[in-house]
Amino acid sequence: MPSRFVVVSLSVLAVSISIGIGVIIGYFSHPSTNSNVQTPIEDKSIQQKLMNSMNKENIRTHLKFLTKKPHIAGRNNDEVELVTYIENEWKANGLDNVVSYPYNALLSYPKQGDSNYVAIVGTDGTESDISQRKELVIDPEQNDPDVVDPFNAYSAAGQPEGDIVYVNYGTIDDFIYLNRTMLIDFQNKICIARYGSIFRGDKAKHAEQYGCAGLILYSDPANYCVPGEGVYPDSWYLPPTGVQRGNLKLARGDPRTIDYPSIPTAWFKNVSETSLPKIPVTPIGYIDAVKYLSKMDGPAVPEGWSGGLNITYRIGPGFSGTYASSKMKMSVKTENEEKEIKNVMGFIRGSVEPDRYVLFGNHRDAWVFGATDPSSGTAVLMEMVRSYTVMLKQGWRPRRTLVFCSWGAEEYGLIGSTEWVEEFQKQLLFRAVAYINVDVSVKSSYVLSCRGVYSLSNLMFDVAKSVPNPDAAEVSKGRTTVYDTWLSRSPFNSSDPSTLPVFGTLGSGSDYTMFLQSVGVPAIDMSYDYDQGLGISSYPLYHSVYETFDMVTTYVDPEFTYHLAMARIWAEAGRRLSDSVILPIDCRLYGVYLDRSYDNLMTIYGESMRSNGIDTDKLKEVIDLFTVAANEIHDRENTLDLSNDFLVRGYNDQLMQLERAFLDQNPLPGRPVYRHYITAPSQHNNYGNSGFPGLVDSMFDIDADPDQAGRWEEVKRQYSILIFHILSAASTLRTPVPM
Amino acid sequence: MPSRFVVVSLSVLAVSISIGIGVIIGYFSHPSTNSNVQTPIEDKSIQQKLMNSMNKENIRTHLKFLTKKPHIAGRNNDEVELVTYIENEWKANGLDNVVSYPYNALLSYPKQGDSNYVAIVGTDGTESDISQRKELVIDPEQNDPDVVDPFNAYSAAGQPEGDIVYVNYGTIDDFIYLNRTMLIDFQNKICIARYGSIFRGDKAKHAEQYGCAGLILYSDPANYCVPGEGVYPDSWYLPPTGVQRGNLKLARGDPRTIDYPSIPTAWFKNVSETSLPKIPVTPIGYIDAVKYLSKMDGPAVPEGWSGGLNITYRIGPGFSGTYASSKMKMSVKTENEEKEIKNVMGFIRGSVEPDRYVLFGNHRDAWVFGATDPSSGTAVLMEMVRSYTVMLKQGWRPRRTLVFCSWGAEEYGLIGSTEWVEEFQKQLLFRAVAYINVDVSVKSSYVLSCRGVYSLSNLMFDVAKSVPNPDAAEVSKGRTTVYDTWLSRSPFNSSDPSTLPVFGTLGSGSDYTMFLQSVGVPAIDMSYDYDQGLGISSYPLYHSVYETFDMVTTYVDPEFTYHLAMARIWAEAGRRLSDSVILPIDCRLYGVYLDRSYDNLMTIYGESMRSNGIDTDKLKEVIDLFTVAANEIHDRENTLDLSNDFLVRGYNDQLMQLERAFLDQNPLPGRPVYRHYITAPSQHNNYGNSGFPGLVDSMFDIDADPDQAGRWEEVKRQYSILIFHILSAASTLRTPVPM
Repeated sequence: MPSRFVVVSLSVLAVSISIGIGVIIGYFSHPSTNSNVQTPIEDKSIQQKLMNSMNKENIRTHLKFLTKKPHIAGRNNDEVELVTYIENEWKANGLDNVVSYPYNALLSYPKQGDSNYVAIVGTDGTESDISQRKELVIDPEQNDPDVVDPFNAYSAAGQPEGDIVYVNYGTIDDFIYLNRTMLIDFQNKICIARYGSIFRGDKAKHAEQYGCAGLILYSDPANYCVPGEGVYPDSWYLPPTGVQRGNLKLARGDPRTIDYPSIPTAWFKNVSETSLPKIPVTPIGYIDAVKYLSKMDGPAVPEGWSGGLNITYRIGPGFSGTYASSKMKMSVKTENEEKEIKNVMGFIRGSVEPDRYVLFGNHRDAWVFGATDPSSGTAVLMEMVRSYTVMLKQGWRPRRTLVFCSWGAEEYGLIGSTEWVEEFQKQLLFRAVAYINVDVSVKSSYVLSCRGVYSLSNLMFDVAKSVPNPDAAEVSKGRTTVYDTWLSRSPFNSSDPSTLPVFGTLGSGSDYTMFLQSVGVPAIDMSYDYDQGLGISSYPLYHSVYETFDMVTTYVDPEFTYHLAMARIWAEAGRRLSDSVILPIDCRLYGVYLDRSYDNLMTIYGESMRSNGIDTDKLKEVIDLFTVAANEIHDRENTLDLSNDFLVRGYNDQLMQLERAFLDQNPLPGRPVYRHYITAPSQHNNYGNSGFPGLVDSMFDIDADPDQAGRWEEVKRQYSILIFHILSAASTLRTPVPM
Repeated sequence: MPSRFVVVSLSVLAVSISIGIGVIIGYFSHPSTNSNVQTPIEDKSIQQKLMNSMNKENIRTHLKFLTKKPHIAGRNNDEVELVTYIENEWKANGLDNVVSYPYNALLSYPKQGDSNYVAIVGTDGTESDISQRKELVIDPEQNDPDVVDPFNAYSAAGQPEGDIVYVNYGTIDDFIYLNRTMLIDFQNKICIARYGSIFRGDKAKHAEQYGCAGLILYSDPANYCVPGEGVYPDSWYLPPTGVQRGNLKLARGDPRTIDYPSIPTAWFKNVSETSLPKIPVTPIGYIDAVKYLSKMDGPAVPEGWSGGLNITYRIGPGFSGTYASSKMKMSVKTENEEKEIKNVMGFIRGSVEPDRYVLFGNHRDAWVFGATDPSSGTAVLMEMVRSYTVMLKQGWRPRRTLVFCSWGAEEYGLIGSTEWVEEFQKQLLFRAVAYINVDVSVKSSYVLSCRGVYSLSNLMFDVAKSVPNPDAAEVSKGRTTVYDTWLSRSPFNSSDPSTLPVFGTLGSGSDYTMFLQSVGVPAIDMSYDYDQGLGISSYPLYHSVYETFDMVTTYVDPEFTYHLAMARIWAEAGRRLSDSVILPIDCRLYGVYLDRSYDNLMTIYGESMRSNGIDTDKLKEVIDLFTVAANEIHDRENTLDLSNDFLVRGYNDQLMQLERAFLDQNPLPGRPVYRHYITAPSQHNNYGNSGFPGLVDSMFDIDADPDQAGRWEEVKRQYSILIFHILSAASTLRTPVPM
């Protein structure tokens, strides 16, 4: 049997106990009578020690090591070299335990020596305007044989030829417009979509649904450059030769083992029966895209569809002029491969509640060097872990258990985290307090960006208020904390003097997904971000070969002060979740969030729902009931006897279980692994978020459906389920007797 | 909104607190520092007080009141009269709270004034040999206008005519034999099946699957009488005029709201889209059955199919002789009706762990007078509750919360318990320690019959050892406890001197079902039973009009000593689950159970699995891993610091969560509400039990399937899921860090 079944290392436990005995300094406690009074709920000195024990130069050193080679999932650089590096570091740091969890995963790679391209093909079969198969090497360090050629993971293989059609971002609305208004027949067409707006896997799904023969994805300068700012290597913006890699998989985790872990005894569905794309898809840079787009026929695109190339964007289908009889051709030889991937997990046992887990997660695998995505996060994780072990050596120990997660194969659609959550779903269901994700830690230096369940928003505001601002210019303006700049640059409502910063909602862009959607673990995701006012679709070099250590130190964070700030925010958020006697989960904020979601729902669908016989006041009533229950439980805190361990535990359990109450016993319709009825990845954009997803999904494009009665019956069913879950959440918060 | 949303009664809480303050006598504790040491883990005097405070004459009085009128679900005698009676008693007893939970449920009744019958119909349409529409009144108390005429709930209405076919018990094997060996074409046939062997709803399902036009159910004397023993009113055996009512529904709870509670905001599926029977089904007594069976044509039945009537049993189809051209006719006008049903719930708040629930459940509704089913259980419930409140008044209070459940509409397929579990599934998932069901408390006076999850078997053995034997003849032979007779009359292995008593497995015959199958709450079901050696299919007057108070006092338990013993067993089992610092859940016994299930599996399917490429040793290996983990957790108890509340709570949580680890996130294939991968109601008999149900179901009749490859692939998938859940259970039991 694999090593995961024999995981209790007595020697490690013995070491940690002897450290505890040796260096007791006041607040370390092996509880003998009551554990709450002795726990440092708000001991500011602990945060100070934790923050002060961090060294930004260590983060730089880690980042340098992590990014010296490309480290794609499933290959040795990541699964052996970096796994070993992290294991060794964490063991040397003195974590209580370090365990690697291997999974057999279906990955995908371009064909070695025959990588993908697109071209124009004449009637005689002659190919012209062939796209680059590799990105241009701009800095010698990029000239590494382990660089994977640009591709979209899980694309079908194929060499389709057909008339080209421009589909803008390839959103569902874009396709509906082309289909219904422009009357485009997508059969045998090669679509070209620009990256941005939605998850690329949804673009591929839409193209497949509409019958396209293939899909080309490209990065338009409108989405990855800013006019007048130059491009890499002169700035951090995307050069014409840069290409965004990325996967197309909508299923989370290994698509052959939905709901179950890919362990040795797993049953693996035949790949042909999974939901992987059935058409070829491949990405190109705008050095190539312009060649095809500029030759297109058909009407000019509608307003908002033009990108930043100096051409007239046309819908097609097909090419014009001398190319009128030519076709677009794709050559995609991407292949799926079974590979072992690994998660590395480190543990610090909680002193009082070892069976309550606060989890920190970051993925390890990168498309190429990954200096931003994800190694900027990994480097921060490494230094955070070390700082925690410094605290351990000083005698401190968290009240609850800390779990540090280095996920494998996130870029392939959250495989490492999904398989692990699936394997330990029952333990996580009962024991996980919260999961804090950092994928990219520092995209840029403009402002903190934070997303999560709303009951954790105040925690994050408080933490941000306690972390020094890494931006010297901001400090000089009196904004001395991360929070000050967050509020100043990213207010929720700029016309409201009492506004809070923006606190976003979670889609499915990183490893928090299954924690929240499958197990109901309250989750946070964050990064230091660029200015959304730039109008770009992601940080420009995202998933390209140019995402290197030198690029980071030149353009992103030369002094590593933002990385350091992220380490501090992450560590302190987890420490408060671990150390606070009463969990810092504020259920009242969920009431605010429900009210806001209700208002949004009414704005878009209220009239339509009412005219189809739905009493929309009923939902408002149950949200109000929830709010009353949320207020009551927090009022109860005032009279809670903190010296009564069982009452404290029971009270915290109610706070923790709130999130679980929103999970349905069945997945959302058509969404195999998402079960959260209040918030889920959007149906048509896995990166986005949908409030009240079951209900909202049921009304999508409903006016165009001939079966109005059937569709509205399903809306009523979804409305009823949503109401049930809000009632269930309210009763979860009430005093346990009676139910 | 309904009253369930405003459930915290401050005045009730105040009362219970003042009682606590007023009468503290030693072991009552409002915990201030540590709660474990002060709790009476094994204080025998508490059990003695609890047992001694019970009075069998009170049970008699309750039974008399409960059975004075027929009290079918959905009508006033049950939903108003008895609900009010129970509420008032419990409030007068001084429970901390009493709450009624109403649900809108789909019930079913025969048509008033035009009740169901069957008959022989000639070619000219003349009906003869018409069956009785009502059971004969034998005792004047049975002559009550509220007696519901014999019917099968949820039958489709219809007046089919066709050739009669005898299908023995109507099991799947019976139908397969008739179909494949006897080449019976069931189209337009009226089948007649004897009651017994399996749940009647499965008989109806099989008849419908095979295309029958209707199904007649009858009680054969072979199954409900013993030769030479006479029949009611001269004994407790079934007279010719007795008819067994009963429902046919396979879905648990309201079939319109699978997975969700039938609360006012529920969405109700159209009845025509539910899984209710599509053919008419109705029951008759053997006074009528013999008229039809004796006239049948066709070959004599195979060995084992003949019943106890003095005729030659024939398969048919059709009648013989002068009746050769006649048909069997059914007239069924049963109708579904929406009704309000109610559960009454009483609460005693736990002193130390109010958010841990030990639940006691019994249903209240009866087909007619219900003196055995269920009122013998209800009468015991009432006296048990009173005895607990006597203890409260003496200052005792249970460590964990006690919940007493009087379920509505159980006879209609567990509706009250299912809707309530669905409504509070999340709280139960996290908080319920165990559920102990008593439906019929005393079927007869022969031996205790106990079924449940195997981890509670030792608890039940221990409890039975502590309760005096109500059987004076047994006591005189030195068997002074309930356990002694249990072991003597019902040994698991009579040739093993160290054998334990039989401890059965759970099907879906009563309200424990959804606790175990939907939420993973360890469950027990028990009754005082008759001698299985009698060979009868249930206690003889089951669901007939003759199940009266006088019948009970004449033939079952004249002195109510067996009822009293049941009250004591039930109360003490719950008290130990509530009061023990360490929960009396023995995970090692689950290992024994898994081993036994494995051996059974190998006996039946081992060779076949191996010859289809399944490594059957792998399952044994993971069961062994489970056993190691189970042994380890119980070894840990020896060194567990009982003064550490958090460790005690965490340890108990692991014991409690074991059962949850066996639940799949998806229902078993084709079984909408059952999720337990180790034990579930049998696929072809809802009363029966299936070990490893996902796997075993997947192999049912597999040799006859032309798609061998597809079927065995599904077997492999099920095998993998089963292994996963055993691994998951093992890791649930291991020390929490690491996972």
